[in-house]
Amino acid sequence: MATMQDVARHAGVSLSTVSYALSGARPIGTETRARVMAAIEELGFERNAAARSLAARRSHVLALVLPTVAGGLSGTLGEFAQGASQTAREAGYHLVIWPFDREEHAEVRDLVRQGQADGVLVMEVSLHDERIDALLASKVPFTMIGRTAELDGRSWVDIDFERTLTDAVDHLADLGHTTIAFVNHSQRSLDTGYGPTVRARDAFHAAAVARGLHATDVTSDESPLAGRLATGAILDERPDTTAFVTMNETATFGVTQALRDRGLRVPDDVSVLAVVTSPEVGAMYNPPLTTMRAPGRELGRRSVEELLAALEGTTVREAPRLVTCVLSPGASTGSAPRR
Amino acid sequence: MATMQDVARHAGVSLSTVSYALSGARPIGTETRARVMAAIEELGFERNAAARSLAARRSHVLALVLPTVAGGLSGTLGEFAQGASQTAREAGYHLVIWPFDREEHAEVRDLVRQGQADGVLVMEVSLHDERIDALLASKVPFTMIGRTAELDGRSWVDIDFERTLTDAVDHLADLGHTTIAFVNHSQRSLDTGYGPTVRARDAFHAAAVARGLHATDVTSDESPLAGRLATGAILDERPDTTAFVTMNETATFGVTQALRDRGLRVPDDVSVLAVVTSPEVGAMYNPPLTTMRAPGRELGRRSVEELLAALEGTTVREAPRLVTCVLSPGASTGSAPRR
Repeated sequence: MATMQDVARHAGVSLSTVSYALSGARPIGTETRARVMAAIEELGFERNAAARSLAARRSHVLALVLPTVAGGLSGTLGEFAQGASQTAREAGYHLVIWPFDREEHAEVRDLVRQGQADGVLVMEVSLHDERIDALLASKVPFTMIGRTAELDGRSWVDIDFERTLTDAVDHLADLGHTTIAFVNHSQRSLDTGYGPTVRARDAFHAAAVARGLHATDVTSDESPLAGRLATGAILDERPDTTAFVTMNETATFGVTQALRDRGLRVPDDVSVLAVVTSPEVGAMYNPPLTTMRAPGRELGRRSVEELLAALEGTTVREAPRLVTCVLSPGASTGSAPRR
Repeated sequence: MATMQDVARHAGVSLSTVSYALSGARPIGTETRARVMAAIEELGFERNAAARSLAARRSHVLALVLPTVAGGLSGTLGEFAQGASQTAREAGYHLVIWPFDREEHAEVRDLVRQGQADGVLVMEVSLHDERIDALLASKVPFTMIGRTAELDGRSWVDIDFERTLTDAVDHLADLGHTTIAFVNHSQRSLDTGYGPTVRARDAFHAAAVARGLHATDVTSDESPLAGRLATGAILDERPDTTAFVTMNETATFGVTQALRDRGLRVPDDVSVLAVVTSPEVGAMYNPPLTTMRAPGRELGRRSVEELLAALEGTTVREAPRLVTCVLSPGASTGSAPRR
């Protein structure tokens, strides 16, 4: 008896296109639909058998694995989930969220084996991530949001931290700043090799060197108080610092508090540029922050496209897999003050 | 052949206790375990058959249904998910999150019927909520976080908005404030009968009347700009307002901006009390806000206990199902200014 694979091959379309044609889960072109129907006719393929085999093989659920939700989800992550959810829906899939600690990779594997999901999106990937090793070993289809150091044969999408930090430094250098500082994620995230923290720090310094700037970086826990202390430490060490790049949404509240405490005006005395965040978060400040917007929705869409391609053994059309953050002007960056 | 139900009845324990005894998913007392094993022996019950029937009947997954994740999840919701997740895990269940629009209740029903979850927690419940009607009609076990107007036979837990707003008004009245305002969620949420918005507004006014205060309320979209405009409107209408209660995390950023714009100092000229939020969000302000902490973790725990009881046809020990928000002192409320 003909299988859905036979129909797909005969019609010259992907397996999922056959599935859409049968389920109506996603609109497909009239011409494509006609080809699929012709193949079904010619091969004597039975629709109900197809539906059964599909149901047996596939949950049509994709799971987004998050290491923790205890602190809530940022707006960026929300946009990511929304973009992923919508793309999944258009392909006849449901996106669900699995909040599992890093140590619980066996639970992820078991749920996939139980048929609770066809594949997973893994967030907050470290350069060496044992969850990824476990998924590879158990042959669970996955796409990383972020990148391990080793990429061979792995499916991934990521923010282009190198490009984003280079653009941030260029923005400040163009405004005449010569001494700048970077407030990064936590020391712990650096120590555990969390990709964004490591890549952003390295790119910040490389860009500063390229523009001949003095540059300092500091790590900060995700709290306003930690951001306040980190900013104070930088200003004690380099009182001539006139611009801050921050990549830590919660700590940035403390950065502006520390500046105000010292009587420094934004942007007259010191510029603040918040990266990998959103203008909506920037609007919580007075004056509103200049930001570089994290491409949450776009990453969500691409990650699901990558995962569906991995599930179906095809490749996605759209390359590259790196998406950059684009500058969104606020009122917190300006020309370097005259000495 | 004996079933697990027979074993449970014979041993005088719940079905889930038999399940835990067999699976080891949750530690149970030595004496209870001995009773279960004795019943299994006496009834000639086969363990593997039990495991099979269990696998067929139960996914051991509980799903938290959220209407949207586009704006991210607040810290409170994160704490809720964490509390629910931990309680589920202790009972041998996994908590997953299903981001579905209000209109997609058929998807929720279908996923439960597919065996993707044994029961669901439904968030952001309206007074008249068609998702709840659909779940009742399709006999999907559920617990509401929040309450429909009709409660008969429904499982629920909720924040005690009446008590919380009464305590908020009392706090300000005790500080000598006589003209107060309430910045609520959006007009849309009021129009669609979203429980928290309606209950909080009514309780705010009732408490103000009880203390003989002048009280105004205003709705605001969830943005700093909307909060700024709402605050301006109140101050134009009642310039003698000396205290604001806010229940809208994002708009509250705009409330403090509007006060600063008008040269009003917090708390010397105007007090701000943010309710159903957290001291962590309060710390993003300078001075840090006095808050009434949303009991996220506690609600998460109780909601899973309610749902497990609903699944097993038992009742939970702990009543009442209302949890209040407790005052967490910051530096944004103080004595009413002298005229």
